[in-house]
Amino acid sequence: MTGKVESAAEENGDIESSYFSTTAAAQEIKKSDEVHKVPLPQNKRTFRALKHWSGECFFPDDPLHKVKKQKTVTKKMLMVLQYLFPVLIWGSDYSLELLKSDAIAGLTIASLAIPQGISYAKLAYLPPVYGLYSSFVPPLIYLVLGSSRDLAVGSSSIVSAVLGSMLSEEVSPYEQPELYLKLALTATFFAGALQASFGLLRLGFIVEFLSKPTLAGFTGGAAIITVLQQLKGLTGINHFTTKTGFLPVVLSVFRHMSEVGMLEQGLNPPSIDMLLFKSSYLMLIIKTGIVTGILSLTEGIAVGRTFASLKDYQIDGNKEMVAIGIMNIVGSFSSCFITTGSFSRSAVNYNSGSKTAISNLVMASVVLTTMMFLMPLFYYTPNVILAVTIILAVVGLIDFNVPIKLWKVDKIDFIAYLTAFIGVLFISVPIGLAIAVGISVIKILLPVTRPNIAIMGNVLGTQSYRSLGQYRDAKRVPYLLILSIEFPVYFASAVYLQDRILRWVREEEERALMLKENGIKYVVLDMSAVTAIDISGIDALLEIKKALNKRSLQLVLANPIGEVANKLFISEAWEKFGSNNIYMNVAEAVAAITTLIKSQK
Amino acid sequence: MTGKVESAAEENGDIESSYFSTTAAAQEIKKSDEVHKVPLPQNKRTFRALKHWSGECFFPDDPLHKVKKQKTVTKKMLMVLQYLFPVLIWGSDYSLELLKSDAIAGLTIASLAIPQGISYAKLAYLPPVYGLYSSFVPPLIYLVLGSSRDLAVGSSSIVSAVLGSMLSEEVSPYEQPELYLKLALTATFFAGALQASFGLLRLGFIVEFLSKPTLAGFTGGAAIITVLQQLKGLTGINHFTTKTGFLPVVLSVFRHMSEVGMLEQGLNPPSIDMLLFKSSYLMLIIKTGIVTGILSLTEGIAVGRTFASLKDYQIDGNKEMVAIGIMNIVGSFSSCFITTGSFSRSAVNYNSGSKTAISNLVMASVVLTTMMFLMPLFYYTPNVILAVTIILAVVGLIDFNVPIKLWKVDKIDFIAYLTAFIGVLFISVPIGLAIAVGISVIKILLPVTRPNIAIMGNVLGTQSYRSLGQYRDAKRVPYLLILSIEFPVYFASAVYLQDRILRWVREEEERALMLKENGIKYVVLDMSAVTAIDISGIDALLEIKKALNKRSLQLVLANPIGEVANKLFISEAWEKFGSNNIYMNVAEAVAAITTLIKSQK
Repeated sequence: MTGKVESAAEENGDIESSYFSTTAAAQEIKKSDEVHKVPLPQNKRTFRALKHWSGECFFPDDPLHKVKKQKTVTKKMLMVLQYLFPVLIWGSDYSLELLKSDAIAGLTIASLAIPQGISYAKLAYLPPVYGLYSSFVPPLIYLVLGSSRDLAVGSSSIVSAVLGSMLSEEVSPYEQPELYLKLALTATFFAGALQASFGLLRLGFIVEFLSKPTLAGFTGGAAIITVLQQLKGLTGINHFTTKTGFLPVVLSVFRHMSEVGMLEQGLNPPSIDMLLFKSSYLMLIIKTGIVTGILSLTEGIAVGRTFASLKDYQIDGNKEMVAIGIMNIVGSFSSCFITTGSFSRSAVNYNSGSKTAISNLVMASVVLTTMMFLMPLFYYTPNVILAVTIILAVVGLIDFNVPIKLWKVDKIDFIAYLTAFIGVLFISVPIGLAIAVGISVIKILLPVTRPNIAIMGNVLGTQSYRSLGQYRDAKRVPYLLILSIEFPVYFASAVYLQDRILRWVREEEERALMLKENGIKYVVLDMSAVTAIDISGIDALLEIKKALNKRSLQLVLANPIGEVANKLFISEAWEKFGSNNIYMNVAEAVAAITTLIKSQK
Repeated sequence: MTGKVESAAEENGDIESSYFSTTAAAQEIKKSDEVHKVPLPQNKRTFRALKHWSGECFFPDDPLHKVKKQKTVTKKMLMVLQYLFPVLIWGSDYSLELLKSDAIAGLTIASLAIPQGISYAKLAYLPPVYGLYSSFVPPLIYLVLGSSRDLAVGSSSIVSAVLGSMLSEEVSPYEQPELYLKLALTATFFAGALQASFGLLRLGFIVEFLSKPTLAGFTGGAAIITVLQQLKGLTGINHFTTKTGFLPVVLSVFRHMSEVGMLEQGLNPPSIDMLLFKSSYLMLIIKTGIVTGILSLTEGIAVGRTFASLKDYQIDGNKEMVAIGIMNIVGSFSSCFITTGSFSRSAVNYNSGSKTAISNLVMASVVLTTMMFLMPLFYYTPNVILAVTIILAVVGLIDFNVPIKLWKVDKIDFIAYLTAFIGVLFISVPIGLAIAVGISVIKILLPVTRPNIAIMGNVLGTQSYRSLGQYRDAKRVPYLLILSIEFPVYFASAVYLQDRILRWVREEEERALMLKENGIKYVVLDMSAVTAIDISGIDALLEIKKALNKRSLQLVLANPIGEVANKLFISEAWEKFGSNNIYMNVAEAVAAITTLIKSQK
C-alpha cells in the first residue's frame, strides 16, 4: 500500500503524500500466521446507528422489555398498564400482613409529616395549612404512579427554602400574600410540567449533571441558610428577612421580633384558578420552577434509588420523573406547593418497616383527619418547637466527612463542593449551583485537552504490557517505544498528542543514547483506551505517522476498538496506516516487530 | 475481607454493610501463583501531583529541555536567548545560498502582498494604504520572534472581513472614518495583548477548541459573505452595506453605486496616540479584539504547523502566540491593523522555495519601496481588479469535500460544520462560532453521560478478550459475563452504568435460560478504557457490586489503570472489592475464576 501512495505522489507531485516515500515499503511488517487481523465492526447504516444511539441515550434500561416478551395482545396491554401504573404490579398481591407493616410506618411518618409540613410551609413563606395540603394530595398521586415502595412524599426542607427565597426576592410574602401564594402555586405547576416532560422526553440524564460533590456542597450551604432563617422562630422574630445571603440573615437576627396566624380547618381547596400565566412575573415563575423542579427531582430520585438499592429493586428514573411531575401538576391544582420524595421522611418510613406505597395512603388519611378535625390543636404549636424540628432535621443533612473524603480522593471534586457550598451560602442558590456544575463539566473537559499518555513495558513473565509508572516489574522492549493514549482523541487534544508523542520519542532517544541502549525503531500506540476519535484526531495520528516516518521510525497501532476502527476505515486512514501495521494487541505487535527486526540483522 | 465486613455489620446492625453477608466469603477467589497482583502507582503528594499536572497542562512540549541539558551558565543563557529569539538559531548559519532562495520567495510574495494588502484593508473598511503598512512592520517583528521559517505575515481575508463587519455594525466607516480607524487600531492592540498573554500564560489549548469542522464551516460561510461584499467592487457600488448577514448584502447589490480615495505616499506613521481606552466603545473593542485575536491565532498557528510538518520541524504553539501577539501590539502602534500568518501567502512563499523568515524581510523591503515611491501607481488600480483578486482568493478557501467527508465519518462533526456555516452566513460570526464550539463540546460530553459498554468474549486461540460486536470469532466464556466500559466513569454516567450493567446481566440471564446454557456466576468489568473515575463513579461500582451480590453474582475488576487504581485505593473501595477480586487483565481473571468454578463442582 505504501508503495502505491508513493507512486501516486510521484505522478502528481503532491507535496503531502510524497512524505510516504520516505517510509521504505520494504520495512512493512510481514505478519506471521499467529497474528490476528483487527476486524471492523458491522457497518451500521445511518438510520440503524441513529436508532441504536437514541436507544442507548433515551432508553438505556429498555423499559418495555417485559411487554415485548408477552405473546398475546391482552397480556401486552396488561404489561403496558402495569408499566404506566406500578400500583397494579404490587396491588394485586397486597395482603393483610403487608397492611399491618404499612399502617405502622404510615402512622409514624404522619407524626413527622404534620410538624414538618407546617415548618416547611413556613420555609416557603406560605400559610402553615399549605404544608398539610401538600402532605395529602401528592402522596395519593404517587401511590398510583410511583415505582418506589419506600418513598414518603411531601415537601422538602431544601426545595421549600429555595422556593421561598427565590420568590420572596421579588414579591414580599408579607405585603402581597395573595400574589405570593399564586406565584408559589404557579411555580409548582411549572416545576411539575417540566419534571413530567423531562420524563416523557426521556431526558433523565439532565439531573445526573448535578454531581455528588455539587449536591453535598449545596446541601451544606442550604442547611446553614435554613438554620439561620429558623433563628427567627427561636428568637420569636417575624418579618425576619427574605434574603438567603449569609450576611442579611445574620444582621436580621439582631434586628426583629413576633408570631404566626390561625390554622384554618378543611380539605385541600381547588386552586386551578390561582395559577397566573400572563403575569409580569412569568420569568420569575419559570426560573423558580426550573430550579425547584430540578432540585426536587434530584432529591426524589436520589432518595428513591437509595432505598431501592437497599431492598434490591430498581427505580426507573424517567418514570419517577413523570410520577413526581404529575404529582406536582395535580398538587398545584389543589393548593399544594412543590413536593418530592423527602429524604428524612423516607428514611423514617423505611426504618418503621414500610412494605409498599400504602404507607403513604395511611399517612394521607392521618393528615386528612388532622386537617378536618384536629387543626385547632396546632394553633398552639409554638414557633420555637417548629423551628427546632427544622433545625434538627437540617443540621443532620450536613456531613463533614464528605469534604474530607473529597479532598483525599479528588481535589477538583473538592473544589466543586466548596464552590457550591460558598456560592449557595454567600451568593444565591442558582448561581452557586451553576458554578459548581460548570466546574464539574470543566473537570470532564480537562483530560479532553490533555489526555494522559503512559509509557508501557512488558510485565515480566506475561504477555501483558502495562504502564511503567504503575507496574514496577514492567520492562521496556528493545527498539520499541510503546505508548498508551488514555483518553478518546478529539479535536481538543489533537495538537497536544502530536507534540507530546514527539517529545516522548525525543526523550526516549536521548535516554537510549545516554544509557547506550538500542535506539527506537518502532512506536506502538496502544489504542485500547481510545474509545472515540474524530476527524481532527485521525488527522493527528496521520501527522504523527508522517513525522515519525521522517525520522525513519515506524508507527504501529494496537487494539483500535470498534467505533474507532470503523472511523479509521471510513476516513481512509486505515489504508494509509496499512492494515499490516494494525494489531489486535500490543503483544502481537511486539512479537511481529521483534521477529522482523531479528530477520533484518 | 468480606468476612470482616460481615461481622462488623452484624455487630452494629448497619443496614448497608449487612448486604455483604450475602456474598459467601468462601466464594472469594483463591489466586494461583501465576496470577499477578495489580499494583498502585507511586502515590504522589498533592504538591508533586499538582506540579506534574500543570507541567502536562501548560508545558507539554517541555520548552526549556535544551536549556536544562547545558552545563555552563553562559551556554544556558545562550539557549534562553535562542528560545526567546529563534532568529539567533538559524541566523548564525545564514548563507548567500539561502539568501538567493529567500530573495526569490520574498519578491514573489511581495507581488501578492501589495494587491492583497490593499484588498484586505478594504474588507476591513480601512484606507488601502493601511494594508501596505500592515505588510511592512509585522513581518519584521515576526522575523525576530517567530519560530516558523515559512510563515508569510500580513493581513488575512477572513480576519479582515470579521474586523470590518464587527466594527461597522456599530460605527460607520464612511460617516466617522477617523473614529472607525481608531477603533480598528485599538481592537488590533487588544487582540495582540490577548494573543501574547495566551502565549505567556501557556493557554495555547484554548485555540484548540475551534475544531476542524467548526473552522471549515466558518471559512465557508465567511468566504460567501466576503464574495457577496466584493460585489460592490465589481458593480462599482460604494456605501454598500456594513452588515454581514446574507439578506442585507444581497439586497444591497440591487440598491447602490461608486469608487475609492487617493493613495498617500510614505512610511508607517506612529499611531500610539490613536488608541482609545476610555471610550464608550470599550465593549465593542474587547469583543472584536477577542474574536479577531482568536481567529488570527488559529489561522497563523494552523498554517505554521502545516508547513512545519512538511519540512519536519516543530512549531511551539505558545511561542507563536507570543510572537503574533507582540507583532500585533507593535503593529497597532505603527498604523497596522490585525495581521497573522496568511494561508494563501505562506503557501506561495513555500512553493517559491523560501528557506527562512528572511523572505519576510525581502517582502517588507519591497513593500517599503512601494510605499515610499510607487504609491501613485496604485491610484489607478480599478476597484474591479481588487475585488476579483479577493473573490478568487476567498473562493479557493471553500472546500466542498470537507462536508462530504464529515458526513461519512462523523455526523455530529457534520452538524458542527453546518451550524458554523449557516450561523456565520445568516446570523453573525461570533454567534455562529459560539454555537459550533458548543456543539463540539456537547459531542464530547455525550459519551460522558452514555459511555459505550461492550460485551466481550475470548478470541479463539488467543488469550485476548475482545468485543463480540467487533470480533466475530470471539466467544462467550461459560458462567462469565465480561463487560468493557469504554469511557472514563464520572458522575454524569454513574446512574446509567448501574442501570445498563444490570440490564446486561438480565438480558444475558434470559439468553442463557432460552438457550439452556449455564447461568452467569461472575461479572468481569474490563476497566482498560476507564482512564479516570470520580467519587460518584466509585460509588456506582460499589452499588453494582452490591446489586450483583444480592443476585448471588460476584463482581471482578480487570486492569484498573494507574490513576483509577489509586482512587479506588484512597476511597477504600479497593478494600471493599477485595484485592483478590482485582486482576491485571481479563485473561488472568477468567483463568482464576474458571479454576475456582471447576474446583467447586
